[in-house]
Amino acid sequence: MSLPACWSEPLPAPDAHYAQQALARQNVLTKPRGSLGRLEQVAIQLAGLQATHQPGVDPARISVFAGDHGVCREGVSAYPQAVTAQMIANFAQGGAAISVLARQLGAFLEVVNLGEVPDRPGIRQEPIAACTANLMTENALSETQLETALTSGDLAAARASEAGCRLFIGGEMGIGNTTSATAMACALLDQDPGILTGPGTGLDEKGVEHKRKVIRQALARHGSKRGPLHGPRHDSLHDPLQVLASLGGFEIAGLVGAILGCASRRIPVLVDGFIVSVAALVAVRQQPTLRDWLIFAHQSTEPGHQTVLAAMDAAPLLQLDMRLGEGSGAAVALPLLHSACALHNGMASFADAGVSEKSSE
Amino acid sequence: MSLPACWSEPLPAPDAHYAQQALARQNVLTKPRGSLGRLEQVAIQLAGLQATHQPGVDPARISVFAGDHGVCREGVSAYPQAVTAQMIANFAQGGAAISVLARQLGAFLEVVNLGEVPDRPGIRQEPIAACTANLMTENALSETQLETALTSGDLAAARASEAGCRLFIGGEMGIGNTTSATAMACALLDQDPGILTGPGTGLDEKGVEHKRKVIRQALARHGSKRGPLHGPRHDSLHDPLQVLASLGGFEIAGLVGAILGCASRRIPVLVDGFIVSVAALVAVRQQPTLRDWLIFAHQSTEPGHQTVLAAMDAAPLLQLDMRLGEGSGAAVALPLLHSACALHNGMASFADAGVSEKSSE
Repeated sequence: MSLPACWSEPLPAPDAHYAQQALARQNVLTKPRGSLGRLEQVAIQLAGLQATHQPGVDPARISVFAGDHGVCREGVSAYPQAVTAQMIANFAQGGAAISVLARQLGAFLEVVNLGEVPDRPGIRQEPIAACTANLMTENALSETQLETALTSGDLAAARASEAGCRLFIGGEMGIGNTTSATAMACALLDQDPGILTGPGTGLDEKGVEHKRKVIRQALARHGSKRGPLHGPRHDSLHDPLQVLASLGGFEIAGLVGAILGCASRRIPVLVDGFIVSVAALVAVRQQPTLRDWLIFAHQSTEPGHQTVLAAMDAAPLLQLDMRLGEGSGAAVALPLLHSACALHNGMASFADAGVSEKSSE
Repeated sequence: MSLPACWSEPLPAPDAHYAQQALARQNVLTKPRGSLGRLEQVAIQLAGLQATHQPGVDPARISVFAGDHGVCREGVSAYPQAVTAQMIANFAQGGAAISVLARQLGAFLEVVNLGEVPDRPGIRQEPIAACTANLMTENALSETQLETALTSGDLAAARASEAGCRLFIGGEMGIGNTTSATAMACALLDQDPGILTGPGTGLDEKGVEHKRKVIRQALARHGSKRGPLHGPRHDSLHDPLQVLASLGGFEIAGLVGAILGCASRRIPVLVDGFIVSVAALVAVRQQPTLRDWLIFAHQSTEPGHQTVLAAMDAAPLLQLDMRLGEGSGAAVALPLLHSACALHNGMASFADAGVSEKSSE
């Protein structure tokens, strides 16, 4: 296979010098040490990642990847599959949540359509196929499709880099993609779909039970691909590339490529909810040092998200009971990074302001 | 006593019609119902409070009240008392956290100094006294001082209303004020200082233990003011006005007046951390319907905050391990309200966008 370089070439490391300088600065700003909590940590992390004394997240860039899922024919979503294409049009017309947030926050938004829908102005068309194969019964993506999707993601990262983007947000649209993401999380983390499967866009309990069965069947198929022809069971079950091909989606593979591609170009990634976190997990399993480049935006109500976050030792910034996708949770968290950077760069030090330090110091 | 009208006159009620309309709108926007979580609730709440189809929080206004505490002579703070005046200067020069955040967020910031510090450009001087009396041994505020502080707060609300402000944030600065606020919370909620007392700006465990003793002594004094001359024990211990006079601070009383004054003028209040939440608790005890007008911004690491929030059935939007005060936690949460309103006002409906609704609907 011809995979993008970011898949296997070593990722850059954060700059420890700038991170240390940022920590030292936080400790002399006019506030009790540590009193800005997570905002201090984020500013220090960004300073190290961006190798700068002045961390910042403008311009920020949002790439939403869209694609459809063959597993939809099993009735795993509360919404008809046509909604993927309809929502792509809604992104282009500016009416979707992520469109509104991008406008409000001054972030550049692009929509990368990996499925086959009618051409629309404002949508980047990089079609792979109408939808993936039905992951319940066969591999979702062929090798070529997977390669194409990963490359689409890497190219989005390249565009972000060329645009001078200082922070990347990946989003997704794809009816059926919580089924795919849940199956992937189960495979990568050896978890049972009984625990991780959730309502997605809004299934009732009966619908969730059916979705569980579909995922269980997909995992049985995935797990059976062991033996002499496929190597030891472990490899096939946990190998990031095999999991993506077997259980993934075009938009999820696109996100994996984009996240790795951003880190390889020294662009920090603000990770959205369940689907994007599963893409991040695949990428971290492939390249463990990627973890340094990730900031986790929010905790979704989708039940599998907590397990996926825990697997990456991630404590998201927000818990607002959101479960929309599109990158919306990351967009809502973006102003926290704006504030963290503004405070880091703009506050006075004790010495500059003539403020006394702690009595005991 | 001559108290501002907002202390006792009935507060306006949220407009149920606009809140219902807002809920109906949320349910037809192009997203699964409820998938924006807390952001939907906030938009609906603001629509009801502002009696509008287009909720918004611009212009937002931040009033920081400052004052000093006589109890500082008991050694209850990690910082010397001089820091209050130094930080007031830092606010004016734009170097404090709240100054940076106000600039970044485009919110108007005023600092109302209720203590006696040298005049400074950019500071509103409404001096009451150099500091409160030592609450460990005597009432912190006289009746006249309390009346003046509450009125200062109410006048800040009047300025906010005249400026057309759509959201109010109160902040505070006063070395020693977690001692005062903790004592007030203990008195109002019948709690023991053993549980509620925390490190404030950064006491070590020995310092916290000493602070506990000071608060315990203050509460014993406060609790002993019962008997024939002062009415039944209950009144004296829990009466909001008596608690404020006995254990409060100028800046805390100012906040109480400002919060009630805003609600009386139909301005929603975004409540900051521990100190402002205690001021809100006093105000809610005086006027229970005030609760409708409050949105809680963040959960501070100060241990008493959780108990105070629970007493008002409040679930704050953010948990970022912040503990700075100044109104900084509320300012950091302000963009969440911006996003909530932008989404409510700007998203397309299913019908407008031609997007199919849930299969089961």
